Amino acid sequence: MSSTWVPDVSSETPFSLANIPFGIISTSSDPAPHVAVAIGLHVLDLKVLATHDKFTELFPALLGKENVFSEPTLNAFAALGRGVHRDVRNTIQQLLSAETTRPEILRDNEELRQKALLPQRSVKLHLPMSVGDYTDFYAGYHHAYAVGVMFRGPQNALQPNYTHLPVGYHGRASSIVVSGTPIRRPNGQILLDPTAEPKQPITGPSRRVDMELELGCIIATPNRMGSPIKVAEAEDHIFGYVLLNDWSARDIQMWEYVPLGPFNSKNFASTISPWVVLADALEPFRTKAIENKTAIQDYLKDVREDTVFDIELEVDIRTPEGDTTTISRTSSKNLMWSFPQMIAHHSLGGCPMKTGDLLGSGTISGPDPRESGSFLELSKGGKEDIMLYGMDVRRFLKDGDTITIRGSCGKAGQRVGFGECIGRIETAVPL
Amino acid sequence: MSSTWVPDVSSETPFSLANIPFGIISTSSDPAPHVAVAIGLHVLDLKVLATHDKFTELFPALLGKENVFSEPTLNAFAALGRGVHRDVRNTIQQLLSAETTRPEILRDNEELRQKALLPQRSVKLHLPMSVGDYTDFYAGYHHAYAVGVMFRGPQNALQPNYTHLPVGYHGRASSIVVSGTPIRRPNGQILLDPTAEPKQPITGPSRRVDMELELGCIIATPNRMGSPIKVAEAEDHIFGYVLLNDWSARDIQMWEYVPLGPFNSKNFASTISPWVVLADALEPFRTKAIENKTAIQDYLKDVREDTVFDIELEVDIRTPEGDTTTISRTSSKNLMWSFPQMIAHHSLGGCPMKTGDLLGSGTISGPDPRESGSFLELSKGGKEDIMLYGMDVRRFLKDGDTITIRGSCGKAGQRVGFGECIGRIETAVPL
Repeated sequence: MSSTWVPDVSSETPFSLANIPFGIISTSSDPAPHVAVAIGLHVLDLKVLATHDKFTELFPALLGKENVFSEPTLNAFAALGRGVHRDVRNTIQQLLSAETTRPEILRDNEELRQKALLPQRSVKLHLPMSVGDYTDFYAGYHHAYAVGVMFRGPQNALQPNYTHLPVGYHGRASSIVVSGTPIRRPNGQILLDPTAEPKQPITGPSRRVDMELELGCIIATPNRMGSPIKVAEAEDHIFGYVLLNDWSARDIQMWEYVPLGPFNSKNFASTISPWVVLADALEPFRTKAIENKTAIQDYLKDVREDTVFDIELEVDIRTPEGDTTTISRTSSKNLMWSFPQMIAHHSLGGCPMKTGDLLGSGTISGPDPRESGSFLELSKGGKEDIMLYGMDVRRFLKDGDTITIRGSCGKAGQRVGFGECIGRIETAVPL
Repeated sequence: MSSTWVPDVSSETPFSLANIPFGIISTSSDPAPHVAVAIGLHVLDLKVLATHDKFTELFPALLGKENVFSEPTLNAFAALGRGVHRDVRNTIQQLLSAETTRPEILRDNEELRQKALLPQRSVKLHLPMSVGDYTDFYAGYHHAYAVGVMFRGPQNALQPNYTHLPVGYHGRASSIVVSGTPIRRPNGQILLDPTAEPKQPITGPSRRVDMELELGCIIATPNRMGSPIKVAEAEDHIFGYVLLNDWSARDIQMWEYVPLGPFNSKNFASTISPWVVLADALEPFRTKAIENKTAIQDYLKDVREDTVFDIELEVDIRTPEGDTTTISRTSSKNLMWSFPQMIAHHSLGGCPMKTGDLLGSGTISGPDPRESGSFLELSKGGKEDIMLYGMDVRRFLKDGDTITIRGSCGKAGQRVGFGECIGRIETAVPL
């Protein structure tokens, strides 16, 4: 991969020429949300680029679809399919390359460049997709195991179905927000003393607000209802990936979740990163998933060896006092099920996937305790203090705490990453 | 309530002048889906009515919003709020009344009447709402108790949280279909012998496809994220009600649902009736919910006595041979939690409800076994035959079986009902 003529692209940026992630921006001169890509510290405004009279010559796949970059979400672009995403990304890389064969279009076109190439700090980032349905899986093996040990001991840590199918549940789409949106501590029903009889809950702010470090996968091409997506074809249905923080209130969860699963403990907010990294950009970073020794069903068998991505993930907490501590470092490879397997399972009974649907991996933790993707694991079920910089400690999140997730892969100068997925906990609404 | 001048309105129709339910139709002359109301055996095409030059004089609340009846879903109309729904319904009742004070608008206007008042059998009915999120509750007390007895015995039939909060889970919005849509039997993972070790599932067509008789509630007015809806204000957020059949595959459910709840066992299809009965139309049919002796939390306390509706519900099965048997008759009053309580609970932590969101009551069964809203109950967990007309029997649904749900209330000539919610089981996709 060559370098770019765009200024201020450091070797450590997650938005190298090898990436070209898509997002939704608004600017002071155009406050209507529309499509851009990120490159270093800049964004390229594709709605502005689409005004160039050579646009459809450069992007023949978008002939008749020039308005796709004026849309307030990426759904219309995603719906064009993976072949179009690939062509468009390739052409943008060509235009931004130091060896571009078409310098007159953008590099040497000062008027267009001034309008289209904008400092990232000057634009506002919006939720990139309109998410119709959100499904959260539980494919992070080490997380499922660690949490299972807490509740059922090491002998029964994993439920019998865990290695046979990618366990998942339907999440709440309406509370998905873009990075930076404040996260209000939820009120909820909590059983303070689970041993007392009769059981008597109280209503109040959750005392156990947690993060969940996840990778999110976004659907591009829908399937018809009743027509499952085969595991071998699932990649063609994927638009790209985001970082996902599936905020969780553990005390609310513990009381409400029997017998139908998590509900208010999860539906107060889920944060995604603003930039969607296209599926093609992550192709070079494939690796093996965690070995599953179970003889799995045919519809879940993937002939490929490398079905997941090795993305370095890290989580910072910043206290209200401003002290920052990195509390977790792990990799997105710590999954027992791949997204193609999740898609094949999800659609097995005929469930239609729609453009913009979000699938979460489930919490990603590594085998080492310092690789934990949740406070539940880091604090051993809320029983041990997590030491932070500045003599501070946590078991769960306090008001004013900010969680930042980062994820990227690749060599210096060619890094492919998501930027930041941030949320700050605000005080609960008074009851 | 007076009678109507519209012909062929029988005293038994669920679409009397007292009802005026809203739906989405297309016609041979206008194939773009748009808004209509039902009256007897006819529909009144509101997109056509909106072309009358006195339209905004008649419907002042729709001034500047004349296009709301040209939309392909009811969402835009629902978003206008309950006051507008009430005004619009009142004016339509006035126009269709035998004592209308404006006969020149429609009754005596043959040209408009010919175009706007159409036989129901000549129009196609579409999904009335675009459903952003679908939540299914479990508020049918007798169902929850009967199923609990099957799995845990009478001592532990209800989980400890059941009487403290309306238990619910997030469903799948993408597979909600309108009455009449064929229902494909889902393939899925099934554990044929739950006692054998190691546990070894197979993949194949569900052998235990079931119906679930439910009432659905549709949200009109959204709340801001982080701002809960109080129980006393929840009625103002409701657009109306539909019948809901939440098809379920019990064998898939049994294997998959631990620990995060039902997933593929539910997401292959949920059917709703095409006509949305407005909240105001059901007001006269309020009654008491099932008594809850638990001291509930303040945010769930409703000062009103009558918080649910007494709607007569019945379920027919028609076999492939054409024999029809009514297998259940019950009432929608068999709920322990009301929709305002469900909405207050759902939004307690800040979760945003959006226009078009669907809340299911959970399966409604009465105290008598013949009032059961699912085959799971009717067949005592799949252990006993249900006797059908024509010497036929069922424990669960066979390919070619058709389930029809009906619901209505009120006296002859003033009945308020939903019409039919129908689905026929089709053979599974070959694996």
